[in-house]
Amino acid sequence: MLKFPSCYPKKEMTITDKPSVPELFSKPKEDILAFLGKIYEHSSWIAEKFYDEYVEGSGEEFTNVQEVFRAMSSVVEKSSNEEKLTLLQAHPDLCAKIESLKNLTKESQVEQGKAGLSTLTDEERAKFTKLNSEYRERFGFPFILAARNATKYTVLSAIEGRVSRSPEDEFAGALYQVGKIAWMRLLAAFRVADNKGFLTCHVLDTAAGCPAAGMRIQLRRISGENSELFKEFITNDDGRLPGGPALKGDEFQVGTYEWIFFVGDYFARSNTKTSGVPFLDEIPLRFGIDSPEEHYHVPLLVSPWSFSTYRGS
Amino acid sequence: MLKFPSCYPKKEMTITDKPSVPELFSKPKEDILAFLGKIYEHSSWIAEKFYDEYVEGSGEEFTNVQEVFRAMSSVVEKSSNEEKLTLLQAHPDLCAKIESLKNLTKESQVEQGKAGLSTLTDEERAKFTKLNSEYRERFGFPFILAARNATKYTVLSAIEGRVSRSPEDEFAGALYQVGKIAWMRLLAAFRVADNKGFLTCHVLDTAAGCPAAGMRIQLRRISGENSELFKEFITNDDGRLPGGPALKGDEFQVGTYEWIFFVGDYFARSNTKTSGVPFLDEIPLRFGIDSPEEHYHVPLLVSPWSFSTYRGS
Amino acid sequence: MLKFPSCYPKKEMTITDKPSVPELFSKPKEDILAFLGKIYEHSSWIAEKFYDEYVEGSGEEFTNVQEVFRAMSSVVEKSSNEEKLTLLQAHPDLCAKIESLKNLTKESQVEQGKAGLSTLTDEERAKFTKLNSEYRERFGFPFILAARNATKYTVLSAIEGRVSRSPEDEFAGALYQVGKIAWMRLLAAFRVADNKGFLTCHVLDTAAGCPAAGMRIQLRRISGENSELFKEFITNDDGRLPGGPALKGDEFQVGTYEWIFFVGDYFARSNTKTSGVPFLDEIPLRFGIDSPEEHYHVPLLVSPWSFSTYRGS
Amino acid sequence: MLKFPSCYPKKEMTITDKPSVPELFSKPKEDILAFLGKIYEHSSWIAEKFYDEYVEGSGEEFTNVQEVFRAMSSVVEKSSNEEKLTLLQAHPDLCAKIESLKNLTKESQVEQGKAGLSTLTDEERAKFTKLNSEYRERFGFPFILAARNATKYTVLSAIEGRVSRSPEDEFAGALYQVGKIAWMRLLAAFRVADNKGFLTCHVLDTAAGCPAAGMRIQLRRISGENSELFKEFITNDDGRLPGGPALKGDEFQVGTYEWIFFVGDYFARSNTKTSGVPFLDEIPLRFGIDSPEEHYHVPLLVSPWSFSTYRGS
Repeated sequence: MLKFPSCYPKKEMTITDKPSVPELFSKPKEDILAFLGKIYEHSSWIAEKFYDEYVEGSGEEFTNVQEVFRAMSSVVEKSSNEEKLTLLQAHPDLCAKIESLKNLTKESQVEQGKAGLSTLTDEERAKFTKLNSEYRERFGFPFILAARNATKYTVLSAIEGRVSRSPEDEFAGALYQVGKIAWMRLLAAFRVADNKGFLTCHVLDTAAGCPAAGMRIQLRRISGENSELFKEFITNDDGRLPGGPALKGDEFQVGTYEWIFFVGDYFARSNTKTSGVPFLDEIPLRFGIDSPEEHYHVPLLVSPWSFSTYRGS
Repeated sequence: MLKFPSCYPKKEMTITDKPSVPELFSKPKEDILAFLGKIYEHSSWIAEKFYDEYVEGSGEEFTNVQEVFRAMSSVVEKSSNEEKLTLLQAHPDLCAKIESLKNLTKESQVEQGKAGLSTLTDEERAKFTKLNSEYRERFGFPFILAARNATKYTVLSAIEGRVSRSPEDEFAGALYQVGKIAWMRLLAAFRVADNKGFLTCHVLDTAAGCPAAGMRIQLRRISGENSELFKEFITNDDGRLPGGPALKGDEFQVGTYEWIFFVGDYFARSNTKTSGVPFLDEIPLRFGIDSPEEHYHVPLLVSPWSFSTYRGS
Repeated sequence: MLKFPSCYPKKEMTITDKPSVPELFSKPKEDILAFLGKIYEHSSWIAEKFYDEYVEGSGEEFTNVQEVFRAMSSVVEKSSNEEKLTLLQAHPDLCAKIESLKNLTKESQVEQGKAGLSTLTDEERAKFTKLNSEYRERFGFPFILAARNATKYTVLSAIEGRVSRSPEDEFAGALYQVGKIAWMRLLAAFRVADNKGFLTCHVLDTAAGCPAAGMRIQLRRISGENSELFKEFITNDDGRLPGGPALKGDEFQVGTYEWIFFVGDYFARSNTKTSGVPFLDEIPLRFGIDSPEEHYHVPLLVSPWSFSTYRGS
Repeated sequence: MLKFPSCYPKKEMTITDKPSVPELFSKPKEDILAFLGKIYEHSSWIAEKFYDEYVEGSGEEFTNVQEVFRAMSSVVEKSSNEEKLTLLQAHPDLCAKIESLKNLTKESQVEQGKAGLSTLTDEERAKFTKLNSEYRERFGFPFILAARNATKYTVLSAIEGRVSRSPEDEFAGALYQVGKIAWMRLLAAFRVADNKGFLTCHVLDTAAGCPAAGMRIQLRRISGENSELFKEFITNDDGRLPGGPALKGDEFQVGTYEWIFFVGDYFARSNTKTSGVPFLDEIPLRFGIDSPEEHYHVPLLVSPWSFSTYRGS
């Protein structure tokens, strides 16, 4: 994400440097404020209000990141329109950031290169600069985008579309982006442990109207260009994974994953009339997990000629 | 494919070594019979009947592979039950083939290795051998599978499922496999030119109920482990590819392809409420093209939390 | 269904006239054979073989209709090709039936009229007669269709499509129809009690990526032109019906049902941008339940602009 | 719809009493202002600004309702936050309206009865009154809902969900409702002629991977409890309706429609293995048309065990 490199964990930081949620809240007030004060860009007042209302005030016990996020979000939501505008305006200008990328050392460019913004052509940079000015003029706050490792395509696509939305829609939308940034910073700042989230799957054969039993499925982890085989399953008679969730506990981490469904093999079992080169053979299904506390059910509904999926729970 | 390596084109064969469909039918009868006689395994009588009925008889003019395949298929279909059984029995035993793989030279193993059958473990080989005997005993003909580059998983999955089907279902099914082999051999034997098939795409945003305009899409060619970027598009206001079909003419070849839809970028345009790590960001959609003469329409219906596709036309 | 009016229950028959499955099998052999001998058209040998193999032979205990059906089906499956052909040929000619409808008394016509065959125009009758002859000539057995209350459109559509299928496909297919008739006759002949089947629902909001909580749903029973409101639900936080299955036990009966999903009301909760006349407001979703022993899961995946459903379990 | 009975056309008004769009704009300024001044509730300033900017100013030529709506909407969008708030506050309180329903004459109750609000129980009325107060207090403007013929369920569902949204989301959302009311009033006020919208269909068989040819489809018009058969089609080889759009020109009117797809008949053609009571037989698919100027493509993707649809174009 473009706006918050400073508070993201360094690679060399060992995992135990980060507190779990209960550990943080066992610390003194000043430590808590120092820690949470960086979550909203240049807006430590949110952490302060949060502390007053929820820690000192209602004395709530926070056990996971989601609870902290919800409470901090509600502080933002209940603040006045002027405070919200101040929050938005506290964010840096993306254009300035892009300019600074021009002068990066080669090494840094590669590092930042993930975001792809250093690869903007002159034409693209000119286009972005123009849209960025229009955006700020139209709405009165800088363009904010909460997409970690955003490519230049994402940034250009986003600003192009958002610059022409209605002011009230975009005001609400920009606050949503700020919330997403806070969420990602919180996730990165805490050591997640004892999380309740898990991942399940289900395969239905919509041509035969029954669970797809005996289908081989791989689960892969995607990281940049890499795709690493993580687990392999054969569906049971109910079309589900034997042995419960595919991921749970410490294995269930925020990130990008991919199922590979071997549907060609499956349909060969029933001598289904497919073609020589089957329309569907190995189906990759890529999806992101964003919350360590939720149930992700990512099923496949499949015939030899169609498939669909959705985020279930 | 397991059954027809002998008549598949060698790599070193130059493209012009293969005739187009009209070129074949301008040759003398004996050449035509020699050419088509190998399409059905050890069953040159099918080519002969085909010649008598369609070339000498009705004097049909064949212009593409699909027409030849349909005519030859109809010869099989109109033959008697006994002839059909003979055709099935003319196919080699897959078990014998697997045994022979054990004694292959290293080089050949690599070459054949695509089929994955040389990698059967002893346990798997024993299982397959048992099922193969059961199959032949139950149905009276060998197990036939028309899947080029079939992995051992496909073969095991197929025989396991098919051995317990009803005799009449499996009789019909085995003939279907024979037809698929013939189709693949015909495709490989001819030089395809002036084909009428083409590939199109369409992206619909099911959350907003409109075409997904301005979405970046890649088209990749998949070959084994390799995925090669072939083309890139930005959808127009109608959610379609600008400039017509993604593939047509000589580019439209039988094989495996993959769209990559950059839906994360697209939803960023409208500041859609997605998560920090979006559930759907880059969607790979892998599909096979099996006929050079057909229209393949492979669309995407997508919301930030679900998608589906199908073979359209 | 066209072929088995005789053994369908009369309206005036009280429910207790029909035995449950265990009650039948507590009777003497001759009663069982008399009862099951009518299940397959003029083919009481199937009941006899069934009795020898499963009742006297393996001494299986039958507790529900599905088990009886599976055992009788396996008798058919294991019989020879000649026996199967004989079974098919034992079925009456549909054409003769249609002719006889012309001479029905008015009253009977109304009664039979559900099937719609008495409403064939002369042109349609001529078309059917011609296809019927072609069918019998091509396959060597009469056209058999297992659709209760089939309209003339169904009959014409079916014969038109099936007359041009391959002989082995249609041989397998005709046996499938015979099986379906047996299934429907068995269902109608027994008193179903203590059945294990049940009906569930689930609504997912694919625009928001979460369960659709608080959606009103009606369940209606469809009988001919009538649609009778049967139950009403409000989905819980998980998008499911509160209080478990919508139907179970005696309420879970074979027949046609319809969900009505009030999705317009649901999307109004979140002020979703829909149109003045919403594209989707009340969604009727009609489905059939065919087996008293199975779990029917009939969910809705819905955005303001799209929806899908499937038979789950 | 709850808010605009006064400007909706009376039944007895003949069609020619309403002007077409070009006819209105050929009238004097005062007539135009009188006509459009009622579109936004007690906010004739919007029509005035619209006139100044678009009619006198840029001299645009308006040919259809959509263009008028877009121009008037842009006036609202460009107005200041204070003006927008004033617009929202100009709307009547729904609670007062509901109270007044109690004292309606019988006749009026029937007329208003479509909205179902006169059927609120005391408990429901109390609940609504409470939520309505909360809403106004929280957001500073009355609860506005643009749903013609809204049932009490819709109203309760909407206010319950919307009262807890964030202020900026609900501010944007309430303006969206105001826009929808304007749209419906404009539609009702003009005589629509020469409209460009039309309705098409397409049926795909996702089990066989091909267009569903020869399927019977009905198109019905839904009006309250009534469902009137309007047209009947048989799909062509491409799975589309023969003869072009199902509705176009004067037949293409805003309202609620229903396709009936006879999929049971269709699958009978290929002897597809369905159940005795098919899971899917006659599929009703109900949808709304909201704009006379747009293309509505409402397809069916169907297997014997699943189906989906979407708003296409």
